[in-house]
Amino acid sequence: MILINGVEADHIAVNDRGFQYGDGLFETIEVLDGQPVFLEQHLSRLSADCLRLKIPNPDIKLLTDEIANVCKSVQNAVLKIIITRGIGGRGYRQPEAIQSTRVVSLHPFPEYPQAYAEHGINARFCTTCLGLNPALAGIKHLNRLEQIMARAEWDDPTIQEGIMLDINNQVIEGTMSNLFYVKDSSIYTASLDFAGVSGVVRGIIKQLSAEQNLTIIEHDYKQDALLNADEVFVCNSIIGIWPVKQIENANFAAGKLTKQLQTCLTQLKGREQ
Amino acid sequence: MILINGVEADHIAVNDRGFQYGDGLFETIEVLDGQPVFLEQHLSRLSADCLRLKIPNPDIKLLTDEIANVCKSVQNAVLKIIITRGIGGRGYRQPEAIQSTRVVSLHPFPEYPQAYAEHGINARFCTTCLGLNPALAGIKHLNRLEQIMARAEWDDPTIQEGIMLDINNQVIEGTMSNLFYVKDSSIYTASLDFAGVSGVVRGIIKQLSAEQNLTIIEHDYKQDALLNADEVFVCNSIIGIWPVKQIENANFAAGKLTKQLQTCLTQLKGREQ
Repeated sequence: MILINGVEADHIAVNDRGFQYGDGLFETIEVLDGQPVFLEQHLSRLSADCLRLKIPNPDIKLLTDEIANVCKSVQNAVLKIIITRGIGGRGYRQPEAIQSTRVVSLHPFPEYPQAYAEHGINARFCTTCLGLNPALAGIKHLNRLEQIMARAEWDDPTIQEGIMLDINNQVIEGTMSNLFYVKDSSIYTASLDFAGVSGVVRGIIKQLSAEQNLTIIEHDYKQDALLNADEVFVCNSIIGIWPVKQIENANFAAGKLTKQLQTCLTQLKGREQ
Repeated sequence: MILINGVEADHIAVNDRGFQYGDGLFETIEVLDGQPVFLEQHLSRLSADCLRLKIPNPDIKLLTDEIANVCKSVQNAVLKIIITRGIGGRGYRQPEAIQSTRVVSLHPFPEYPQAYAEHGINARFCTTCLGLNPALAGIKHLNRLEQIMARAEWDDPTIQEGIMLDINNQVIEGTMSNLFYVKDSSIYTASLDFAGVSGVVRGIIKQLSAEQNLTIIEHDYKQDALLNADEVFVCNSIIGIWPVKQIENANFAAGKLTKQLQTCLTQLKGREQ
């Protein structure tokens, strides 16, 4: 089911700026037992991203009603929300009156083997780099060619995620996930000031770590730091937390802090439902 | 008139990757006396960009027929061609069988005052930077948020173009144009290895300069070099060449080499028709 500005449809105007220029942003949300998980955090990030891109915030009451309408008949699914700068003429200049477009759609929940969450996944380093741009860093916008080029680098089904560096060889994130590592009981992740997507689950992990009195540090780091880590994990709103058991020739345990954060995340999801 | 995969329509599938991720590229072409100008060069750049993005090249015979069909009833217009990676599921991974989408559309030719081409335009420096990414640099792809953010910086109708720097303060191009300057009878433009769009008219200017035994140099340069230039001009497929008469407080003559290249470009367009 797809709602475009509240109306069931599966086609969008060609002159929507989302299609013409990738001029918009999106959210990907887990639907669990018919309820969107961490909806408040997703809508809050969506509003923050709209502000940064100067796209008028959609009417949140309207959007929430549409989300409830779309989710009411499903158990587990993926909910995707796209907000664009709406319809416009040719040219980068935005229309004088912007009426943003809302697209709310449901998708099947991917059937990931339970082993990914329990024992971990295999990852590789991508050669496609993330560009540096402080104006867009952190935003979950619709300009996603970098991730697409990176994901097209491998076909091997035994590799579940690709790790992306920026053009200065700083490690940033996975193609579809944020990336953390543990070293000497501290948790580290990239700072995302110049590249990357500031994921909702990334934010929740920071909050859970603080509640658990765990040290979490955002910093710039390179491949060596990652390959010498005690534990490595990735996260996003659909997979939750997956340990990384192998990056090319380096092996990692699905370790204690990763398991602790997985448990905390599951409990938090339970409390929110 | 809009043709989507050869069929007249004004809506595109929501799950087209052009809409979901900006996963595609485009061409903007002048239609003069019913004929697309520099079509061969545009189709050649389109094919080269498809190759770099690993999008299957559209059937050029089919596309050329569609272009002829769309252009047959107009005199002067703007022709836009969008090619996307086609329809796909959720996620960055590309579909196993890619059927690229072709969108061919006509738009009114903008009514620019003749004074822009004769006496020049006013420009400003944008604070929105171009990100650095060698994998995407030069490609006229659908990820255009940087240009949109830059174009949204000013409303003043007396300013016609914004000049964009990269995050290292190198001057790259205009929001909708390539940028050149003249100093001591040599012509300079940015090299576009890390940012920018390698425009068709930019390529033609390089070729015309060589034919005219003019020295043209691609290099990295900063604002100072531009502000101390003898002449400055911008170009694209719709405006042709416009002298820049003012950048903030610096003034420039619509000088000899700019005029010479304008004349050469007009003659070349005439020969091609």
